[in-house]
Amino acid sequence: MTRPILRQPDPKLDLVLERIVDVPRELVWTAWTTPEQMKKWFTPAPWTTADCEIDLRPGGIFRTVRRSPEGQEFPHVCCYLEVVTNEKLVWTDALAPGFRPANRSSEIPSLTVVITLEPHGKGTKYTALVMHKDEEGRNRHNDMGFHDGWGQAADQLADLVKRM
Amino acid sequence: MTRPILRQPDPKLDLVLERIVDVPRELVWTAWTTPEQMKKWFTPAPWTTADCEIDLRPGGIFRTVRRSPEGQEFPHVCCYLEVVTNEKLVWTDALAPGFRPANRSSEIPSLTVVITLEPHGKGTKYTALVMHKDEEGRNRHNDMGFHDGWGQAADQLADLVKRM
Repeated sequence: MTRPILRQPDPKLDLVLERIVDVPRELVWTAWTTPEQMKKWFTPAPWTTADCEIDLRPGGIFRTVRRSPEGQEFPHVCCYLEVVTNEKLVWTDALAPGFRPANRSSEIPSLTVVITLEPHGKGTKYTALVMHKDEEGRNRHNDMGFHDGWGQAADQLADLVKRM
Repeated sequence: MTRPILRQPDPKLDLVLERIVDVPRELVWTAWTTPEQMKKWFTPAPWTTADCEIDLRPGGIFRTVRRSPEGQEFPHVCCYLEVVTNEKLVWTDALAPGFRPANRSSEIPSLTVVITLEPHGKGTKYTALVMHKDEEGRNRHNDMGFHDGWGQAADQLADLVKRM
């Protein structure tokens, strides 16, 4: 178990958001793993998170529903792969809950997300690695505004934690 | 952690092989997780297993290469999802090693396999649950000879263990 599974991001296939946030990582972890908190920060405004379901273990469901300002809803059903409290959270939409291969109809390219939290002074180094199966998927996700969207969500997360 | 993740097989989406084999489950486990043993039983004769690579941990690679009697080779790259020594082994080809969504070109329908080993007298109750994303994939896999193929492989596994 000495070799790490996740290597360097592949710039052709991956997107990465890295942030230093000035809140402790335990609180960032809680914000990512508590449905009531997720609903308050996960989707960049003016969109909202209409629903969130979390069964926090490998094979468990991670379902979010984003709602547009016009009220259109976009569910996203994922499956957790790795759960290391306060350190690492991994999920994918290439598998349905229970690890079944996903029958996808979403326009979002299939992805696996690795959230890594590291202590950084009194705050947290927050890294979101998003892996795609091909360059087309990575580029499409990039063009959909990955960095702005995930960046704004990270800001919303930090704001929420500070207000609580 | 009380609710089990894997429920009853779905007859529309899943294929199941269940066998009682008269060898202890620790040896069945070793046969499934040791490349040198895998090469001796995994592929129904007269086909053979030309190569096998195992990194036995969630996210690790599980790669096999089947060789036809004419010498044509068919690699199959999978990713382990769950590893419970002597009890349960789960992998999928919907993800590449490291959990990246797989860029599949195989004609085999995308699948997740759950091998479960339970003590049964001096032997083992051996169950292979193969989950597909849709009925078409399940039916195609069934028509490719799932039960004969997996059954013959289980026989070869038991024979190998008894000879060792």
